[in-house]
Amino acid sequence: MKIDITSAGLRDLDLTKAKEAARALKEKTGRGSEFTGWTTLPFDYDKAEYRRLRDCAARIRKEADALIVIGIGGSYLGARAAIELLKSPRHNAGNRPQIYFAGNGISPEDLSQIIRLTEDKKVFLNVISKSGTTLEPALAFRILRQRLEKALGKAEAARRIICTTDRAKGALKGLADREDYECFVIPDDIGGRYSVLTPVGLLPMEAAGIDTEKILEGAAEGMSLFLSEDESNHALTYAAARQALQNDGKLIEVLSYPGENMRFFAEWWKQLYGESEGKELGGIFPASLELTADLHSLGQYMQQGRRILAETIIRFECPADDMALPFDEENADGLNYAAGKAFSEIFEAAARGVRQAHEEGGVPVTELVFESPDERTLGEMFAFFEASCGISGYIQGVDPFDQPGVEAYKKNMFRLLGK
Amino acid sequence: MKIDITSAGLRDLDLTKAKEAARALKEKTGRGSEFTGWTTLPFDYDKAEYRRLRDCAARIRKEADALIVIGIGGSYLGARAAIELLKSPRHNAGNRPQIYFAGNGISPEDLSQIIRLTEDKKVFLNVISKSGTTLEPALAFRILRQRLEKALGKAEAARRIICTTDRAKGALKGLADREDYECFVIPDDIGGRYSVLTPVGLLPMEAAGIDTEKILEGAAEGMSLFLSEDESNHALTYAAARQALQNDGKLIEVLSYPGENMRFFAEWWKQLYGESEGKELGGIFPASLELTADLHSLGQYMQQGRRILAETIIRFECPADDMALPFDEENADGLNYAAGKAFSEIFEAAARGVRQAHEEGGVPVTELVFESPDERTLGEMFAFFEASCGISGYIQGVDPFDQPGVEAYKKNMFRLLGK
Repeated sequence: MKIDITSAGLRDLDLTKAKEAARALKEKTGRGSEFTGWTTLPFDYDKAEYRRLRDCAARIRKEADALIVIGIGGSYLGARAAIELLKSPRHNAGNRPQIYFAGNGISPEDLSQIIRLTEDKKVFLNVISKSGTTLEPALAFRILRQRLEKALGKAEAARRIICTTDRAKGALKGLADREDYECFVIPDDIGGRYSVLTPVGLLPMEAAGIDTEKILEGAAEGMSLFLSEDESNHALTYAAARQALQNDGKLIEVLSYPGENMRFFAEWWKQLYGESEGKELGGIFPASLELTADLHSLGQYMQQGRRILAETIIRFECPADDMALPFDEENADGLNYAAGKAFSEIFEAAARGVRQAHEEGGVPVTELVFESPDERTLGEMFAFFEASCGISGYIQGVDPFDQPGVEAYKKNMFRLLGK
Repeated sequence: MKIDITSAGLRDLDLTKAKEAARALKEKTGRGSEFTGWTTLPFDYDKAEYRRLRDCAARIRKEADALIVIGIGGSYLGARAAIELLKSPRHNAGNRPQIYFAGNGISPEDLSQIIRLTEDKKVFLNVISKSGTTLEPALAFRILRQRLEKALGKAEAARRIICTTDRAKGALKGLADREDYECFVIPDDIGGRYSVLTPVGLLPMEAAGIDTEKILEGAAEGMSLFLSEDESNHALTYAAARQALQNDGKLIEVLSYPGENMRFFAEWWKQLYGESEGKELGGIFPASLELTADLHSLGQYMQQGRRILAETIIRFECPADDMALPFDEENADGLNYAAGKAFSEIFEAAARGVRQAHEEGGVPVTELVFESPDERTLGEMFAFFEASCGISGYIQGVDPFDQPGVEAYKKNMFRLLGK
């Protein structure tokens, strides 16, 4: 990968604090270090469990028409990001098993649609929850499990339910032991938003036909580099640049990404950064922009709105798929000046045009260029953003691994529901 | 509808400027008044053209397996918002005609997927562009039109291409006249982001089986109220509240909406507000949050991040669909305290819990309660946000109907492409 911060006006960026932060992360001496298991995960993950996970996924792929993944926040965003990027946001049209994501809200329309679309199909469930009592996934799991048991009996239902949960404790683990559901472990030292390379993310990805071994390889290679104190480590640069920009009054970071298939990658990124740094009344607000679609909606604000924005553009050197603009004799649309050019080339011109225009308009732009949207690169991207987020949080002076604010609304809600 | 600003701490809101702005809008004496045709559109739309539009949609519904809508920004967001809310984000699974949205980016993966998914189907195209030379839709239209003509011949292709474009001028209008495509008009006095109730939005909605007459009725009823100077006009309150919050340092407005089927409504809203107010280095940055999904990703920032946020929660009194949480003898998930409760009731408790928690955390919350997610209400919602946006922009002191910043990146891009 490459990083370019020249247009962000940060040529003489001081990496001292970023290096200290990387060392604290690596040596587990910083705040919240009991939740930094993700720093070594690509190397020391449980190989026996991983083989069992691939067997389980192979069984799902052989037998299932549909897999319903039940989870919220970090328990679905990473898998959905990977499937939409490496397969397609329209994966369910014409592929099996179809992958549905449920239990990430309280919308009855959403759950009843999933039930309707899967009711004549052979369905497996993968319920992902550390505790088993988080409201949204628990609601969906109760309803979907009862339907499965009613239709197939308890024994066959149990064969089709896979739990990703705590190693030893919690309501879901208890139920799984009693009912003999196959279980995979969410490690104790990895929080939800850093869990994409645990079974939380890996099982749905494998079930969708993604080669997760390559993702893990890319992540391992990336993580070695991105936690190093080497000046060529771009994770240091990105972290230091973000914090320098925040100090300079850039209170919103807009992640601009190159197409609809990266929308959930951006959602994963928003959770990672927003939840790691949005605390103690500080932190950069994470937002996203789909190139070039949203230039026709948010572009005006980007160009001339309040100057509290920094932009980070993600681009791939080689897209997965490409096509060229054909020549047209009539040239009614006036596009023949670009005839013969590949979409990738046109996109690159657009991205450069955006970068220059936004920079001139007062929005500093950081550009991140990755190789191509494949398994290996995605592993690298997960490692890059995780490592850089930990570093950035330490520079900011917060614990990037807790989330003390997420319980507040739940307390009110439970009281209103009479719990 | 109802509005509640009590928790936003704005009890003594002064509506004087909002009333003046509403009058200027209605009497067309404010800035950019040559683009305020949308204020009277629900009453004075071209009835003969509308009948022809419904006939055209009926022909599409009778003949087509798939309709590909080609447009970007305001030329697709409104229709997509309506179809996802009133039908489903998964409309294409099991319904015909399927509706695809193309030409809203330069992603080759996206376009080639749409081509693959529709290649054995009877396809119609609706290309939406004032000029016909906007890069993204022109790219997609050139490719899709050539494929159609190659497969079916020019005459049959022409029967299946419908243009929504300028009344008289522009490249697309010229082509349509030469090829004898059926045309619908984008009125001169209505800009892209205010065009959802013109044929831009109405044709795709009708083709998807939505009763647009009810939407227009809801919009007409709403628009009469929302442009009035009556103190009970909630559009005045919302506009005045937003600007008071902006003056108080709330630089980001987060629109929180109740489920995945409103995601594109939020995207439509983001364009409407961001493009109308994000100018002259000012304006509120528009962001969105899906309830309750994103509380598990952005919730931490909302609760304890930088206090530059105001939140607007949209809720429906009666959801379209509902289901109840069943009792479970074993109660492994501990949810029996809520057994028998409807999802809508649980959602309402969550929304109240959020509102109270965010307010206590220093985020002022405005609540907008609409009746139910049906055609009439959606018309009311379009009218509410359009009217209130015009009012809000006038209070801010900008022209809410221009977009001088959106050309900047295009100039650079065209230069790089050698135009």
